[in-house]
Order: sequence, then structure tokens, then C-alpha cells
Amino acid sequence: MTYTAAVSGATGYAGGEVLRLLCGHPEIEIATVTAHSSAGQRLGALQPHLHELAGREVVDTTAENLAGHDVVFLALPHGQSAGVAAQLPPETVVVDAGADHRLESARAWEAFYGSEHAGAWPYGLPELIVDPSGRTQRETLPGATRIAVPGCYPTGSLLALAPALAAGLVEPRDIVIVSASGTSGAGKAVKPHLLGAETMGSMSPYGVGGGHRHTPEIEQGLAWAGGRDVSLSFTPTLAPMPRGILTTATAVLRPGVDERRVREAYHAAYGDEPFVHLLPEGQWPTTQSVLGSNHAALQLAVDPHAGRLVVSSVIDNLTKGTAGGAVQSLNLALGLPETMGLGGQGIAP
Amino acid sequence: MTYTAAVSGATGYAGGEVLRLLCGHPEIEIATVTAHSSAGQRLGALQPHLHELAGREVVDTTAENLAGHDVVFLALPHGQSAGVAAQLPPETVVVDAGADHRLESARAWEAFYGSEHAGAWPYGLPELIVDPSGRTQRETLPGATRIAVPGCYPTGSLLALAPALAAGLVEPRDIVIVSASGTSGAGKAVKPHLLGAETMGSMSPYGVGGGHRHTPEIEQGLAWAGGRDVSLSFTPTLAPMPRGILTTATAVLRPGVDERRVREAYHAAYGDEPFVHLLPEGQWPTTQSVLGSNHAALQLAVDPHAGRLVVSSVIDNLTKGTAGGAVQSLNLALGLPETMGLGGQGIAP
Amino acid sequence: MTYTAAVSGATGYAGGEVLRLLCGHPEIEIATVTAHSSAGQRLGALQPHLHELAGREVVDTTAENLAGHDVVFLALPHGQSAGVAAQLPPETVVVDAGADHRLESARAWEAFYGSEHAGAWPYGLPELIVDPSGRTQRETLPGATRIAVPGCYPTGSLLALAPALAAGLVEPRDIVIVSASGTSGAGKAVKPHLLGAETMGSMSPYGVGGGHRHTPEIEQGLAWAGGRDVSLSFTPTLAPMPRGILTTATAVLRPGVDERRVREAYHAAYGDEPFVHLLPEGQWPTTQSVLGSNHAALQLAVDPHAGRLVVSSVIDNLTKGTAGGAVQSLNLALGLPETMGLGGQGIAP
Amino acid sequence: MTYTAAVSGATGYAGGEVLRLLCGHPEIEIATVTAHSSAGQRLGALQPHLHELAGREVVDTTAENLAGHDVVFLALPHGQSAGVAAQLPPETVVVDAGADHRLESARAWEAFYGSEHAGAWPYGLPELIVDPSGRTQRETLPGATRIAVPGCYPTGSLLALAPALAAGLVEPRDIVIVSASGTSGAGKAVKPHLLGAETMGSMSPYGVGGGHRHTPEIEQGLAWAGGRDVSLSFTPTLAPMPRGILTTATAVLRPGVDERRVREAYHAAYGDEPFVHLLPEGQWPTTQSVLGSNHAALQLAVDPHAGRLVVSSVIDNLTKGTAGGAVQSLNLALGLPETMGLGGQGIAP
Repeated sequence: MTYTAAVSGATGYAGGEVLRLLCGHPEIEIATVTAHSSAGQRLGALQPHLHELAGREVVDTTAENLAGHDVVFLALPHGQSAGVAAQLPPETVVVDAGADHRLESARAWEAFYGSEHAGAWPYGLPELIVDPSGRTQRETLPGATRIAVPGCYPTGSLLALAPALAAGLVEPRDIVIVSASGTSGAGKAVKPHLLGAETMGSMSPYGVGGGHRHTPEIEQGLAWAGGRDVSLSFTPTLAPMPRGILTTATAVLRPGVDERRVREAYHAAYGDEPFVHLLPEGQWPTTQSVLGSNHAALQLAVDPHAGRLVVSSVIDNLTKGTAGGAVQSLNLALGLPETMGLGGQGIAP
Repeated sequence: MTYTAAVSGATGYAGGEVLRLLCGHPEIEIATVTAHSSAGQRLGALQPHLHELAGREVVDTTAENLAGHDVVFLALPHGQSAGVAAQLPPETVVVDAGADHRLESARAWEAFYGSEHAGAWPYGLPELIVDPSGRTQRETLPGATRIAVPGCYPTGSLLALAPALAAGLVEPRDIVIVSASGTSGAGKAVKPHLLGAETMGSMSPYGVGGGHRHTPEIEQGLAWAGGRDVSLSFTPTLAPMPRGILTTATAVLRPGVDERRVREAYHAAYGDEPFVHLLPEGQWPTTQSVLGSNHAALQLAVDPHAGRLVVSSVIDNLTKGTAGGAVQSLNLALGLPETMGLGGQGIAP
Repeated sequence: MTYTAAVSGATGYAGGEVLRLLCGHPEIEIATVTAHSSAGQRLGALQPHLHELAGREVVDTTAENLAGHDVVFLALPHGQSAGVAAQLPPETVVVDAGADHRLESARAWEAFYGSEHAGAWPYGLPELIVDPSGRTQRETLPGATRIAVPGCYPTGSLLALAPALAAGLVEPRDIVIVSASGTSGAGKAVKPHLLGAETMGSMSPYGVGGGHRHTPEIEQGLAWAGGRDVSLSFTPTLAPMPRGILTTATAVLRPGVDERRVREAYHAAYGDEPFVHLLPEGQWPTTQSVLGSNHAALQLAVDPHAGRLVVSSVIDNLTKGTAGGAVQSLNLALGLPETMGLGGQGIAP
Repeated sequence: MTYTAAVSGATGYAGGEVLRLLCGHPEIEIATVTAHSSAGQRLGALQPHLHELAGREVVDTTAENLAGHDVVFLALPHGQSAGVAAQLPPETVVVDAGADHRLESARAWEAFYGSEHAGAWPYGLPELIVDPSGRTQRETLPGATRIAVPGCYPTGSLLALAPALAAGLVEPRDIVIVSASGTSGAGKAVKPHLLGAETMGSMSPYGVGGGHRHTPEIEQGLAWAGGRDVSLSFTPTLAPMPRGILTTATAVLRPGVDERRVREAYHAAYGDEPFVHLLPEGQWPTTQSVLGSNHAALQLAVDPHAGRLVVSSVIDNLTKGTAGGAVQSLNLALGLPETMGLGGQGIAP
């Protein structure tokens, strides 16, 4: 294998998914796995599903342990990536699964995260349409040595609405998005409301009223797509499943836009994408259909009575929404085939 | 016990929940349980959770078998209630858990159900505010002998937004509602996409784009509350849980409306309600907290950035959303205490 | 209401279920709710499903706060009940949902719990057959002022096998029991392996090889039933559901015993029981059928090829397995009807 | 790719999993997908998780459509494989995921399946120890052109106990096994008790008392391992998860056997196996850790008090328990590396 990698935060959900995907990547060798509080333990005790890596020893997350690799994955709590990245040489490809380098706006960062802004890195959502000409984020990634992996909610939301905004089919104002996420999205933090007995069989909202940290990130990406600022009401909810995000995204239709035009725009946007699929008419997406895979599936409807476009998208929050998107972007950065190591289909039923 | 009851559709989910609640109702005696295809079987084989009724024989759903009771519950497929009800004497209290008598508009009925309109009956959602003075639907129920039980999605949606519309705090146009329902909402019909292996761990939308039959019912109730027509984008989704509905309802704020005013309006509307609760600030509702109970819990947020009010509501689709609402309305119709037989708390965890 | 009650451990799962049931008990008034670390908070923030008690303030679990009630429920961690109970007057009815007073054998207690034995109290499983004459544990409860509530696994296991042992139909040696429990059985303790993302969609064993603390308690009860010591292999497993226990209990058939004889023995044992039901032949129990109720359902099969009796039982671990059994035993102790406040059917689907 | 394959029963769960794995197999090309009732449809409408194959057309399951391939997978209802296989040339490698060719005993087949015995094929469980020398089933597979894929329960049970029987550590009599399976094990048949609303949050037994068709298959494999007939009490249960089997297998210890000896025997049996893992002491397996993978994980305990060995095993019923075992055996038959196309780790959380 050509490249060596270190994965930090290897005992969490994002780090574990990065490792799972790298186990199947033919050109990347997992050289080092790090975590702070579990340093010294066997990975098999902490991530028992990674059978191939069961005997690996977890070492502490230090700049010294991360140094000397071609690629470093950071799956650390928000606010910790910038400090670590600063100690890595500029030629190391650093892939940050945390939020630190996603937002261009220092003001938005400070308002939602309450700490100093670390600056934005190239945004790792290759399929994201970033201007009305249909150009995608993909173009910015080859050769990049710093990559900000998008948040999981933003991945689902941006894939759902960027084509409509870029094509001028919907208004940029008053976008409404409601997303349902599996509980792994909340991480491995041990909090009472995330216990199995509390989450199984139950749904609940959180971060309602604009307070969720993913709101400015979604607005940023939608503004790129549409070429102007957008306003968004975003409500995340917690669903009784380990993985997956179902996003229901709606926007006000511009006058005269019918379903045919919208469907054409989405076909134009995603027809050649290996991982993003507009389903045939009449077939609605299920999160199960993308479980454990880097695929996203979409369906759309034009509601003339309400005057809104409704787009449903499904992703696996840990795969396309985190680790899969990270590997896909890394492939582009390294000049490898974009789909390398990401060939897995969804796990269903 | 004072009143005798017959329950039709007794082997389905709605009928089963009616029976469960009636088992604990001190003034109603379950005299007859009917179903069509299971006639002749013991109820215990079909509804094994109703231990008290295990030995009851299911008889066919005929006018003859339903006759001679003080109260008749109809939990039949849409379109079948009107014919059965027509054969029952006018003094029998008929409670229809189906859709047949919910809509006042014959045009809406025909557009969404494709059959002849049977006419509207008093609408069994006592807490629903039906005009700007704060008057509720409760006033129409005493003495009623025909009651249309609201749909489960409408119950969650109307409780969420009626106070804001009645108080003129939000615009009646461009309301957006996304709801997640447990799979019992789809009934006991045996369809592949409702199999456990398909639904567990998976979320999916359906009826997107305004096509769901509950859309005109929600619009009808919101129009009553606000005193003028509304326009609604409603998206139902299927969640991996047997029961429960989480509704995320948003509407455009009128100028100058802040959270304090909204909260006051909801306190005024629901402060004295036995079953509808605005949670303390900072506490978000979970469907688990109302499981198996007739309670509804709400929380709200004003999002000044998006210019929208967001209200989250949770109900149990089978209890408050169907059978509990039915019993509550029946209590009012019969002149019994409104909460009789509905004292159960939520089942958690 | 005739009796006042204090409930300690009110913020945990067992305490919450005691409170839920007492809300529907006509002769017991919840006067005081206590917990240690949450003292001072509103109960509604901690047990949001107990709508009726939302405004109650939680006070600290001290002897002072528990004093002066007719009934005190202890839902405390193992090892803490004895100390608290010693400070309560002898005429107070103390119901201990913890393990402290379940085992008669000081040696067994010390081997499995590692602390000093507090002595055994009357064992609160009224239906338990305790000798070959068919006498049940029920007879020991009237007038009792100290009650040890059985563990949840023992409740399911003892109901499954006591009739066969008492009737001499199976050997007391080499009993094998495998149980699957919902995750609420592990309590509200916040441990990583109990997170929703870890438990949903996954099963796992624990306490294998005889180490589970419920093993000596099951053996004790089975020995009472059969009149001689038994040997047991007990394996508990964790199932992806909040509540419920499915027990598969098998024992070696004595020569010449056929299914008819076994079925007669179980009919004789449970035919008049209000809460324990041998299902009709061909119908297998589901935990859903007893969810939230004090009912237990059983089915049995004689396997002549293997030479074993197999009995399946289902209970709700928090209701019949903890709080329901507690209230049922308390009713007997107080001279109230045994089923008072326990009329709820199962919550299904 | 070197070999062409046809997959029949492609719209069911077993067929879908075969296709999922073949999508990642470098030497096998999916040439034809067949099903009977769905012939003519796009595979994407029926198996939406197989994004790579979404556009494939399903053709009818006829000998003509299956002919002309190097490999034919049969994922058909029990009793249908023999007829189809008879029409395929002897040099075609036929892999039967159904039960038709698993049992050597015509009497056992007829007793449990009620039809004529089609004869046994080489049994596709490479790791199965088949005699006291430690020889495995692996040796019989190279060059085979007919392979019977083991049942999912037998795979979990045989891996759990074969080493102990082969090493003479336990008695062959009175083995007791209780297994919990995800609901996909029941197939895609649309039956009321398999609905999501019935299965979520609920456990239930079935086929109790020796009646399950997998009983003779487990006994057959255990008899191979131990060199003499065994007697088995086997109870399958249905767990609220889509996939996975947790098996709790217990057998009577022979005198003087301690845990060290047992652990050594399992290390000797599985220490070099790529897919079967005895976990380190103290770590218990979870079905999540093998989800979607061809891995099996085991743990064991010696219970001196009960005199039994208890072994817990976990597999994914559709992967190692069906399609993964099929591909693994096929690799051996074709002379390919045994692990080819099976490199996936478990999907967790």
C-alpha cells in the first residue's frame, strides 16, 4: 500500500468508521491508532467489530505519535483539531472529521462554538454544487493537504437542496429542513438521554429554534450553491436507530417551476455521480438502503398547493456523513480514484 | 357500569387500543367485540395483550351484532363507517375512528379519498382551539351521538399550532409540518415495507408532496383555529418504533412576535388542560414520555433568524391520536368526567 | 386514600415504575418522592412520563424524609436498603425492590454480593408454589411489614418452573435457563455498553457461567417449590428493547411424564391466578403482550427426543418483575384486594 | 473477472445478501439475477441497497435463465432446489442456500420437511470440526460442484460446540441450545407476526420443543464433531433486530474438565481461522460486532456449580449464517483464496 495513515479518536464512532473503511482501502495502510483515555488498550476491546485490527494497541493522541504518516485523520472533539493540526507538517494530508475548519465565517464559528476561529479548509463534499454553472466542490480537492469533513446533517441537507438553488428553481429565503438522525450522531459520550432504554422506541427533537451548530454550515453550503445568502429553519431530531439520517428539506418554489424541471436539474446534477442517486419516481428512500455505505439516495416532490419543493435524502451519518465522505475526499486529494475503498453496498435488511 | 359498548374492528390496532382503554373505564362495559375476517376466534389469539378479554369470542361486524348497545366504536377501513352508522339508531352514540366523517368539505373528501362524501360529524379533539376567542372544540361534544375521531397526524399537528394561529402570532400561509410516526400508524395490513426487518433501524418518508390524506384535515383544523384558510406542506415519515408521533411544526412569525408572547398564548390555551402540556423551557418532549397514555407534550422555540415559530409535539398515535381521544370525546358526549378511564401515565422507559 | 407512601430511588427505573403504578392505585397516596443526587429538582424533569407528578419536588433520601408514612418503597442500589430500613419503625410497611433481603442463605449472599447479609424478608412473589402441596408464597404476605421484592429474572424463571418441580414432573438437577432482558433491567446507570447506539439492533450475553447474582435467588425459589436443592445453569442476555424478559427454562423430564400431565399441573397451579396465564396450545408468548402490565404469560412443550420440558415465560421486568410484584404483595400485606391498582392490560403493539 | 454467476431468489433476503457480497468479489461477475414473482422488474425497486445493481432486470427463475454460468446460487424456498439443480450440468458449481441438501438422513429430512429426500451435498461450513483429530469440513470443499449452505442457527450452534465435542470435553447427551435471531431469519414472507409493530420491542419463542427444522441439522453436525450421536434441546427465539444470531449453547462437562482445558481446545480449533474468533477472557460477544460481516465471535465459561460448559456465539444470520458462508465455501470449491470478497468488518455501532 502506498500511503500510511494515523487515525486519532480511534475509539469513538467516527474514528471507528474511518478505520472500518480503511481496512478495505487498497492504497492506505493503517499504521497508528490513537486515543487519549484508552491509550494502552487493545483496539479489539473497544471496537470489537474491527476484527482485523483487534490486536492493535491504542497509543496516546500526541503530535509525536501522529507524526511521520502520509495521512492523519482527526476524529477529535470540536475545538481540538486546530491545535493538533498545527503541529503536523504542511505536506501531511490532514483530514479533520471535527467541525473546527468547516466554517468560513469567523463570526458564525464564534457564535455557535464560542471559541476562536481556526480558519476554513477545503470542504470535503465532492458532489456539492457550488455555483449556478454546476461546478462542484470536487474541483477544490485534488492536491489539498488539509480537508474539513462536512457535518453529517449538512451532508444530507446540502445534497438535498443544492441543485435546486443552483438552478434557481427555489427561493433562497425561508428554507425549512427537519432531519432525523440515528443516535450514533451524538457520539459515544455517555449521557442519560442516550441510553438504550431511553432512545429505543422513542423520538425527540433537540437544538430546536436555530441553535444547532450545523445550521450555519448548512446555510454556508446552500449560499455557495445559490450564489446568495439563504435563511434556514433547521430542526434535528433523534430517531431510534443506531445510524442513518433522513432529511426532509423544503423550499419555496419559484413561479412556474414544475416537477419536470426540478427532476431534470437533479438528473443533471447527480446523473453521473457514483454515490448520489435520485430514485425513480414513486420510490422513496429508506435509511436502511444506505446503511454502512457511502451512498446517498434522494427523492423529490413538487407540492403546487403548498408552493414548495420537498426533497428527501438519506445517508448513513457515519459513512457518507463522516468517514466515507472523508475517504472520498482524501482519494481526490491524493489523486486516487474517487471511489477507491468505498465500493460497499448498503446493509439491508 | 352504566353504558354498554360494542367495538368493531376489534382485531386491528385502533380497535385493540379502544378495548385496552375500555378495560379500565369504570362506566363502560365491553359487551360485544366484532371483526369480519376473524369472526369466531377467541380475542386472546388476536390481541394477546388484552388478558382480561382473552376468552371473548369475536363476532362478525354486522348491524345486527352492533345493535342494542349504548355506544358503538367503529374502527373500520376508510369508507366503511358511513354504511354501518346508517343502520344504527340515532340515539346510539357512534364513535368513528375512521376518516369518513372528519372533513366538512365534500370536495376535499372526494379529492383525497375518491369516494362519495358521507358528511361531517362533531370533531373529537376537545382541546382544539377553534376561534380567536379561545373557544375549543370541547363545547360541541356534550350530547353528541355521532363523533368523528381525528386522525393521528392531525391531532399532533393541530395541538402544536392552533394556539399560535388563534392568537394571530403566525401567518396562516406557508406552514411546514414534518411528522415521524411509529409503524402502527400504518395499521395491521401486511405489506412488505412494514415488515420488522424493513422498518427496524430505518426511517423513510411517504406521501410526500401534499398527497397524504391527513393534509386537508390538518388544514381544516388550522383554518378553524385561525379563522381563515391556511396553506400547508405536510410530510409524514415512518420511524422505527411501534408507537408515537413526533411532530415538528413551523410557521412564519408575524412581525414583532417574541418567544414570551408565544409562550403566554400556549399557557393560556393549555394551562388548564388535563392532557396537553407545554413543557418547562429547556425540556424537549420525547414520544416515550406519552407512550400508552392520552397525554400530549409540547415545546416551542422562536427562531428570529429564520423568522419562524417551531413547535414540537408528541403523542401516542394509538392513544391520544386515536382511542384515547375517542374515549375522551365520548366521556364528554355522555356527560361523564372528561378524564374518566384515561388516568394512565406514560410507559417509560 | 387510606395509606400514605414514600418512594425512594424515585428517579430510577424501578422507582419510576412504582410511582406510575401508584398513580393508579385508589388506596395509596404518593406523599413523598426521594432521591439522592437529584434532590431539589422537579420530578417532571427526571420522569417526564409521570405527567400527574410533574410538579413534585424530589427530596433527599434520608430516614427523616421517609419517616411518617404508612408505606415506604425502597428502590435503592443493592446494599443500601438494610441501613435505611433499620431506621424505620417496625409498623411501617417497607417494600424493598433491591436485593438485600431476598436470600435466606447468608453464605449465598456473601458469595454473590460480597457484603454482610441483612437477613431475609417475606418474598413478594404471591404465585410462587413453595411446596408439593401447591401452597403458594401468597400465604406469607398478609400482615407482613417487610417485603423483599423478587428480582426480575427470578420472577420469570420461578413462574416458569415451580409447578413442574412441585408436581415432581422434572428432575431438580441440571436445570438450564436462558433469559433475554430489555436494557432497563440494567438500570439507569450510564455505562457505554448501555448506550442506544450499542444496544439497538444487538444482542449479547453477560454474567455467563453462573456468575449472575440472580442465580442463587432462582435456585432458592426452585428449591422451595421442589422441596430439595436444585442445580441451575443460568445465562442472562441483553436484548434490544427497553422492557421485557423472555425466559426459556428447561428441565429434565422424569420417566413417563407426557405433555398432558405437565399441562394439567400448570393449569392447576395457575388456572385461578389473575396475573399468570398458561396460553392455549399453539400460542407462544411475546414480551409485547405483557408490556407495562403485571401479567405473565407462559407456554410449554415436552420434547421427548431431548427428554426435557421447555417452558417459555414473558413478563415486563419493571412491572411484574419489579414494581407490579411489589404493589401486588403490598396489597396482600395491607389486606387490600390483590389486584388493586394493577388492572392495566399490556401495551401493544 | 474469471467466473460468471447467476443468483436465483434474488429479491429475498438471502439472495440479496449473496448479491451484496458478490458486488465486492473480484473474481465473480454477477451475470444474471432471477426471481419468480418479480420477474421483469428492476432490481433497484426490490433491493434498493444494492446501488450498483439498481438497473439490473430481474428475470424468471428458469433452468434456461440459470444455464450457461460457472456458478449458480439457489436461494429458493425449501423443497425447490433439488428440481432446479437437476437441470443444471454437473460441472456448474451449484450453491444451495436452502435446506434441501443439508441432511444426510432421509428419515430426518422426511420427518421435519415432509417431502422426499434429495440427498446430501458437501456441507459448506469450512471451520466445522468433523472428527476428534481436529479435521475440518474445509477439506471436503475443494473441487466440489454442489454445496449445501448450512442453516443460520446450525452455523452459530456448531461453531459454538464442535470443538468441545471433538476434544471429548463434554457429554454428547443433553445438550441445550437457546438462540435469538433477528427477524430477517424468517425471510421476506409477509406474515402478521413479522410486522414491525409486532416485532419491535418484543421477544418471542417459536418452534419450541424440538420442532424446529434446524434441530436435526445441528445434531448431525455435532455428531460429526464428537464421533457419536448427540441429543439436543434447541429453542429458537425471535429478537427485535433485523439481523444477527446470539447462541447460548451448553453441554454437560466431563469429569475433571476445567476452563483452561476448554480454552486450549478452542484456541487449537480456531486460533488460525480467519473468521472465527474466541474473544479474550472477560469480553463477551455482541451481534453488532459481526453485523454485515462473515465473522463469528465466541466466548465460553465453565460453570462448575452447574457442571456445564456455556458457549456464546454471535454471527450475522445473513452473512456468515448464509451468504458469507456460501461465498467462503465457493471460494474453496473454485480454488480461490478462502477469504476473497469477504474482507468486510462488522458494521458498528
